Amino acid sequence: MPVGEIEFPEMHPVAGFSLGTTEAGIRLSGRRDLVVMECAEGSTVAATFTQNAFCAAPVTLCKEHLAEAAPRYLAVNTGNANAGTGAQGRVDAETVCSALATLTSLQPNQVLPFSTGVIGEPLPVTAITQGLPDAVASLSVTGWEDAAHGIMTTDTVAKGASRQLQIGGDQITITGIAKGSGMIHPDMATMLAYVATDAAVEQELLQQMVSEVADRSFNRITVDGDTSTNDSFVVVATGQSAMPQLMELESEASGQFVTALESLVVELAQKMVRDGEGATKFVTVQVDGAKNSQEALDVAFTVAHSPLIKTALFASDPNWGRILAAVGRAGVTALEIEAVTLWLDDICIVEHGGRAARYSEAQGQAVMNQEDITIRIDLGRGAAAETVWTTDLSHDYVTINAEYRT
Amino acid sequence: MPVGEIEFPEMHPVAGFSLGTTEAGIRLSGRRDLVVMECAEGSTVAATFTQNAFCAAPVTLCKEHLAEAAPRYLAVNTGNANAGTGAQGRVDAETVCSALATLTSLQPNQVLPFSTGVIGEPLPVTAITQGLPDAVASLSVTGWEDAAHGIMTTDTVAKGASRQLQIGGDQITITGIAKGSGMIHPDMATMLAYVATDAAVEQELLQQMVSEVADRSFNRITVDGDTSTNDSFVVVATGQSAMPQLMELESEASGQFVTALESLVVELAQKMVRDGEGATKFVTVQVDGAKNSQEALDVAFTVAHSPLIKTALFASDPNWGRILAAVGRAGVTALEIEAVTLWLDDICIVEHGGRAARYSEAQGQAVMNQEDITIRIDLGRGAAAETVWTTDLSHDYVTINAEYRT
Repeated sequence: MPVGEIEFPEMHPVAGFSLGTTEAGIRLSGRRDLVVMECAEGSTVAATFTQNAFCAAPVTLCKEHLAEAAPRYLAVNTGNANAGTGAQGRVDAETVCSALATLTSLQPNQVLPFSTGVIGEPLPVTAITQGLPDAVASLSVTGWEDAAHGIMTTDTVAKGASRQLQIGGDQITITGIAKGSGMIHPDMATMLAYVATDAAVEQELLQQMVSEVADRSFNRITVDGDTSTNDSFVVVATGQSAMPQLMELESEASGQFVTALESLVVELAQKMVRDGEGATKFVTVQVDGAKNSQEALDVAFTVAHSPLIKTALFASDPNWGRILAAVGRAGVTALEIEAVTLWLDDICIVEHGGRAARYSEAQGQAVMNQEDITIRIDLGRGAAAETVWTTDLSHDYVTINAEYRT
Repeated sequence: MPVGEIEFPEMHPVAGFSLGTTEAGIRLSGRRDLVVMECAEGSTVAATFTQNAFCAAPVTLCKEHLAEAAPRYLAVNTGNANAGTGAQGRVDAETVCSALATLTSLQPNQVLPFSTGVIGEPLPVTAITQGLPDAVASLSVTGWEDAAHGIMTTDTVAKGASRQLQIGGDQITITGIAKGSGMIHPDMATMLAYVATDAAVEQELLQQMVSEVADRSFNRITVDGDTSTNDSFVVVATGQSAMPQLMELESEASGQFVTALESLVVELAQKMVRDGEGATKFVTVQVDGAKNSQEALDVAFTVAHSPLIKTALFASDPNWGRILAAVGRAGVTALEIEAVTLWLDDICIVEHGGRAARYSEAQGQAVMNQEDITIRIDLGRGAAAETVWTTDLSHDYVTINAEYRT
């Protein structure tokens, strides 16, 4: 069960972008496990991928295809990650692209392949290629919700987000789906996100925007600090709205577009955290007063990754000593502990190197009893600030990850 | 219960070093919680302390006293860490030193104070100062085992190690105790280790040796990646053996001494891991074939800290995909995945970027069913190697850390 309610919103169709979903029987029967997406001719496509050196075969192939041609189709299978599969994995990913290219009378490098699921087992290529015609036949601009289900693995709910906004008098739409039950459990090859817009965006500019918003959304969430071999985030701009093409980052229109895109992607990222494995809390870690952004992130992630803080959150225990100790070991050069202030929501818990004089355990307990908690840390040494989102560490996390393969 | 058997060995007394232990009623009654150690005049003393910026008041005071005078007494209390206690914490630590100095007709800066226990609560100074006379009265060169119990907090067993060896025809003794139920849970202000030897070692050389062996022992173990505000490791060299004073690191005698010291300290460190919170496995992570030591350590600690690998270890699941993914995200520049080979004990599980051809799940399962497991990673790009020791992540870890304060 996710933390709080994750509603699947109304998904505004994006002109020029269709989605088709089917049951291909890849690993389990009776489950939507194959999704095909079609981008209209003239679309620009940008993507970011996992930094993991052991990236999966489809990730490698995606990068090559993106460099060679403008993508027209995306094919996503669940149940098998096609990772740790050596040379055969590469051949299998190419086979899927060729099969879809044949069906649609395109070249194989106009197809981007994606896989998510178990690592190290051969991709069931035949099940996928046999499922492709049905997925293609069901392509529709209203296919978002089916596709959101089709890309799920350990997710307990489908995740979508959609925006419509006016830029310079023209209406544009941005709609997206994501899967990922927390960052990141490599077996499940975890995070996939697909966003489409009818805005027209020049390709290099789109790539710049994608990298930037990924850095402020998917790269700001963590459940367990592990990162996957298959993470992929793709944005397709079909250009079918009336809005003139965005050409440079500094324009007012680009600013409005990036703000909307970031807001949508942050919504998807936060939904992943809320659906994090075993999560019972949704925790915002906000670091202010840092000398620079990297320092703020170092402190925020040290707190967000600490198993001791995460187990205390699970226990609803306002154990401020653990937060203080995590801040102290985050590697901030010449940190003055006298200048550090900690809050749980609006309750000041630590100042001047020790427990805040006016703090009472009852105040901290009241915050900890909530499902949504903000840990705020002011380092008192600068103007930089960063925010990350995470969960607690529960018995269910151990159970899910100890028993996943059984 | 620790992983494997942790025997408390025969502790050879060290001439010129005595230990006294008492029940001072600091937090719980009926518990040995105050230890005093006496170093004969002429002893040299060296120490390393936590790198945590939020270090506890006694740690700060220890550093100052070490810079000012040759220590003659060490005072250790459990039950309260005197950390996160602001200006009052400093005053309280000074009061303990003054009280022991008065009792022993010395100066306060000849006393080193240590505290371990709950963070953020005022040190019960009166209980400690009232307990000091009894601890001093019980000082004895045979006091090691009582002292090993007296410094325990969440430890389930007392930890000691002792060596006697011949250097240049003279017999010397090295004996030590440690507490720490895994690295590192800040509330319990965790790792304390005290080692004494009757060797004579010049002070700066001793400091160099202490830093070096700490780096190859206590800094190579991890249970949960958290580090404490109070960690301290002290070595006292009384010089009462017949062996000539060690003056330089490069001498043969120094080499023999450091080897013995390192072996003893590694034994203490490994006992901490075996007694790690909720541990059911003792895991050695060995990285070979790295370009340099730092790269080997980065990979080893990424594997040792991964919650996904640790939960798989708890489940005795030979989930090699998680190990492979952790190696891939360890930040090694231009890692060639084709060159990486992974073993569980002697079983090769991954080679050439995928599952080893001759590997069978039954082989991996047989290793995983053991209590002691070695994960060996050959990066295939150099000659550097490093080893770290860790545990699994169990339900008991979550329970212990979620319920600690209740």
